This record gives sequence, C-alpha cells and structure tokens, in this order.
Amino acid sequence: LKRFAPPAVYEVAPGLGQFTDEILFGEVWLRPELKPRDRSLITLAALISGGKMAQVGGHVTRALDNGVKPEEIGEVITQMAFYAGWPNAISAVDETKKVFQVRRIGPVPARENRLNLDPAAEAIHSGMVDAAMVPGSPVLAELTNRVLFGQLWRRSELTPRDRSLVTLAALISLGESGQLAFHARQALDHGLTAAELSEIPAHLAFYAGWPRATSAVPELAKVLPPAQLSEEELRLDPR
Amino acid sequence: LKRFAPPAVYEVAPGLGQFTDEILFGEVWLRPELKPRDRSLITLAALISGGKMAQVGGHVTRALDNGVKPEEIGEVITQMAFYAGWPNAISAVDETKKVFQVRRIGPVPARENRLNLDPAAEAIHSGMVDAAMVPGSPVLAELTNRVLFGQLWRRSELTPRDRSLVTLAALISLGESGQLAFHARQALDHGLTAAELSEIPAHLAFYAGWPRATSAVPELAKVLPPAQLSEEELRLDPR
Amino acid sequence: LKRFAPPAVYEVAPGLGQFTDEILFGEVWLRPELKPRDRSLITLAALISGGKMAQVGGHVTRALDNGVKPEEIGEVITQMAFYAGWPNAISAVDETKKVFQVRRIGPVPARENRLNLDPAAEAIHSGMVDAAMVPGSPVLAELTNRVLFGQLWRRSELTPRDRSLVTLAALISLGESGQLAFHARQALDHGLTAAELSEIPAHLAFYAGWPRATSAVPELAKVLPPAQLSEEELRLDPR
Repeated sequence: LKRFAPPAVYEVAPGLGQFTDEILFGEVWLRPELKPRDRSLITLAALISGGKMAQVGGHVTRALDNGVKPEEIGEVITQMAFYAGWPNAISAVDETKKVFQVRRIGPVPARENRLNLDPAAEAIHSGMVDAAMVPGSPVLAELTNRVLFGQLWRRSELTPRDRSLVTLAALISLGESGQLAFHARQALDHGLTAAELSEIPAHLAFYAGWPRATSAVPELAKVLPPAQLSEEELRLDPR
Repeated sequence: LKRFAPPAVYEVAPGLGQFTDEILFGEVWLRPELKPRDRSLITLAALISGGKMAQVGGHVTRALDNGVKPEEIGEVITQMAFYAGWPNAISAVDETKKVFQVRRIGPVPARENRLNLDPAAEAIHSGMVDAAMVPGSPVLAELTNRVLFGQLWRRSELTPRDRSLVTLAALISLGESGQLAFHARQALDHGLTAAELSEIPAHLAFYAGWPRATSAVPELAKVLPPAQLSEEELRLDPR
Repeated sequence: LKRFAPPAVYEVAPGLGQFTDEILFGEVWLRPELKPRDRSLITLAALISGGKMAQVGGHVTRALDNGVKPEEIGEVITQMAFYAGWPNAISAVDETKKVFQVRRIGPVPARENRLNLDPAAEAIHSGMVDAAMVPGSPVLAELTNRVLFGQLWRRSELTPRDRSLVTLAALISLGESGQLAFHARQALDHGLTAAELSEIPAHLAFYAGWPRATSAVPELAKVLPPAQLSEEELRLDPR
C-alpha cells in the first residue's frame, strides 16, 4: 500500500493513517465517477471555503498535476471570494503564489471576453432574486444581479460547468444546504452529469466532514432524475 | 482606480483583484448607508467569528482609522468570545495586541459601571430563555440569564446598538439564521435604523460569503417595516 | 482569583480576562456534572472540528493532565477526520505531535481488535442509512455503512460512550443540529447520562459560541427523559 499520510499521522493517530491510505487515496480518489481534475477542483473549493489554509498549497500542486490550469485555479479563488468571503480567498492567493513560484508559473493573464446569457432566462432569474431579497436587503439584490450573476458568472476563465461544481462544493462545505438544490439543478443544466453530482458528497465527506455531506444528500436527491437507476432497472419499474 | 488589492492578488487571480478594487473598496465601503466605523465593526466581528485571523490585524488598523476606540475593539473581542467561542477571541487578542504595540496604544482600562435594565422587560426575557432552554440544558439557561444577558450585555464599553450590530454580524457569519430575527428586532430597539439593518448583509456578503448573506435576508425582512418603501410608494399602496 | 488568561487578554480586552478567570475556569470547568476528562474530550473535539488550531496544543496538554491517554487523543483526531474532514485532523496531528515530543510520548500503537455489533440492530441501522442516502448519493450510503459505521465506530481505541461524546461536540461545533438528536440518543444508549448530556451545550457555549449551543438545546431536549426532574418532582407529577 502506497503511503500518502505523513509519518506523524501514523505516530499520533494510526487509525487516521490507515484510513488515509486505504480509503481516501486507495479508493475514493481512484473512483472513476469523478475525474481527478474534478476531484481537485472540489477539494480546493472545500479547503478555501472552509478556511483550511494549511492544506491549500499541497492541493494546488496536486490540482496542477491533475490538469487544472493556473488561470483556472485563480478563477476558483475568485469564485470562492464571492461564495465564502474575501478573507479566505486572499489567504488562498498567498498559498497559491508560493506554489506558482516553485513551479515557475508567471502572472495569470486578465481576459476580457464574457459569456453571453439568454436575456429572457436572465430576466426570470433576476426577478427571482428581487422577490427573495428586496424585502430584506434591496442593495444585496442589486449586487447579486449586477455583480454576482451579471459579472462573476459570465467570466470565461472557468466553464459554467466547473463554476457550478466548485460552487456546490462551497455550499456543502459551508453547510448552506438551503441553497444547494438551486445550484445542483443549474449544475445539471451546465452539463454536470447525474453520476458526477451524486459522487460529490462522497468525496467531500472526507474534506468537509460526514455531517456536511449527509446534509447535502437529500438536497441533491431533489434534482436527480430517477435515471440514477440503470436502463434495466427502469424497464422493471412498472410506473 | 486606487489599488487596495496586493500585487499577488492580480498575479494569481486577476478577477479577484478587479472585484476588490472596483466593487468592494470602490463601491461597497463608500456606500453611505453604513458609516465606515460601522463597516469596520461588522467586518471585525465577521473576521473574528469566522476564524479569519490573517485579516484581523489589517482590519483592526482600519477600524482605529475609522474611529473605533481601542476599548471598543477589546469589547468587540469580548462579545465575540460569547458569540463565536473563546478560542477565536483569544487568537484575535494576539493579532490586536500587535497592532496596539505598533500604534503605541497602552492597556485598555477596566470599567466598572454597568447599564441598568428594565426589571419588567428582563423578567419576560429570562422567562423566554428558561422556556426555550431548561428542557435541554438547565445550566445553559442559568448561564444565559446570569452571565450573557445579566453581565455581558450590560457592560458599557460598547453601546447596546453597537453590541447588537456586531452580534448580528457574528450570527450571519456563523450561518445561525434561526437566531437572527430576535437579534435584528433588538438591534432596531437599540437604535439601529432599518436602512442600516438592510445594508448589513450586502457588506457581509464580501466578508462571510454570498450564501451566508443570502440566508440572512429573509430573517431580516421579518422585522423590517414596510417603511423600506418611500413615502410616495406607501401612498400608492392601496392597502 | 487564579489567573488563567494570559496578560495580553487583560491588556486588550479586560472583560474577556475577567470572564475567563471568573466564569470559564472559575466555574464551568469545575462543575461536577462533567468530569475534567470529559470536558477535555469535548473541548478537543470542538477545537479540531472548528479549525481552531492555535488552541489545540494547549488543550492536548490539559487533556493529558486530565487523564486522557495519548492513544485516545489520537483516536479523537481520527473520529474528527470523519466528522469535520481530513484537513482539520491532519493539522491537529501536527499540533499534537509537538506536545507528545515535549512529553516524550512515543508512537501510539495500532490495535487490531474491533468491537462486535449486534447484527440485527446493524441491519436496521444500515437500512436507515440506505433509505436516507441512496436517492442522492449511493456511494456515500455505501461508504457510511462499510467504513464509518462498519470500521470507525467499531474501533476499540475509544469507548462507544466517549466516541459519542466527541461526535456530539463536533456536531454542535459545526452547527449541524439536524443530526444531533440521533447521536444524542445513541450517546444515552452508550452510557452517557442525561445530566452529562445536558451539561455539554453549557461547556461548548464557551468553545463554539452561544449560538451553536443554543441551537443544540432543543435537539437534546428531544431525547432527554423527564427524569431531568428529581424523584420528588416526579412523584408530584400527576401523569
């Protein structure tokens, strides 16, 4: 068995060493339901949104090895600024900069091109935001429509699918399960598959803890099709 | 555009640099709905309650510049000990001490005078605490009435209005939205205006993340008067 | 009054100094409803699950002084890996290793023996897990039954009673109150007393903050018997 857990883990908490090498790296990271690149994206999102800075550098290195581009890492950090707050994002910049220096990665270029959105769908969406937020905070409604959805989500540095993926990871890591179903449905619309979606809580159980993953499951179930069943199972279903 | 974001932010996450300078410092901190002093108070409360210690020193400096007195900063830390736990408060003391040393600020004096409370209102309040807590934890009910409300909230180092302000920021930052409506109503009773209250989630979206701010909005709406509408809008309303 | 709070606390936040010495160490830690060893266990669990690493070393030292064995500390860390995520557990290993070195505590031995579980009760339990999780994440259901309950909870390095105790502390510290009643009932089945259970939120109010403790109370009340009442009070009850 290859040892990923550092020796100190086996000395202080031998059970943790075993679970790390047998289950986390020996099974979970190898499961094909999510590609290593996707696992790196949600791991980074969970670490940054959970304020777990001591592990960010190591997982930035792993993310680069798994094919996440430097500009995508920068954009995950930007997305996390909005979904977990500026302080964690700024701290993550410092950890990432150290890795970029070791890897001789230069400054990430600033792009200008933005994704176009469907105006009709946007009008419905911004009406929903207003209905939910104007009674409590008109200014947050305005910032949400203009900056969060009008600017951040239109940036092309990450595909909408990857942006949805890291946003789901942030919501699970923060325990904000009330906003999960909305973003899970959007993730499916952005091209995440049902199999990928249902794999996310299993991976994040190890990075944000079982209780956060457990709370996420019924919210994801709300948007998962019965197509979780195989074709054969569907044929057997008399409905 | 004045640059607040450090160069590393533009190098690693150029989008984050732009949003920092254009939106966070270029717009949000300048909005008149909350004074810079109030923004510093809720920012400190969000940082301490969220365990974001790397940013506490910088925002203690900014708070002093925005007119928050040293003894008020110490008292925000004390309030956060109760609302986010001792460990974060003790860590915040260490960060604050470093700033006080640079600014040559000596030990904060211990005061003795305490605010008087209305005995009738207190009796109602402590009855509510007992009803909610005695079945699950009689000792927490007793500590809540005697220490939290009987001692902490009566300290004169912060006005009740400022104490409510930082408590709201802590609850939003922790995601404890179930306790927000009670404290939001108290904040209004303590002199916070409706306009100030509805500005809080917009500011904290940047320091605790959009999901926490979003979850807070409907709770604040419960106690905000329809006076969010202008006089003219109220006249147009046929109700 | 013995001073536990470091001098910096009195200089920056004198109120916090007073509350630390008069209430937290002068009262709460001395209450007989939970033994010092149990208070150390839940304090460590709250610190690790809350990511409050600056305080872990000091409380590992205190835990050793209060009779928690080194292998039990390692096992609390392992339990927290599952309940609060790997990153916090790995960071806690580093802090604990430093204390073990100072105390000249060698590597913790890896045990092999596992607790036997009642197969009938396990079948019911794993059916509940499947019903709750399969629709959203079949893989998390499988990992929960095989690894979390089938391996972690069967490890003999901690008694089931102590494992329940630190799990409750993690759930309270994370604010995952929806999963508290289930684990509180299990804790009672594992031998925690009702008096001990109702003392937990009072202790954790100081380590995870009052809002987390407050949210826990009604969940604990669901499983506490009216035996919170004394024998005499029960006789007076006409039901």
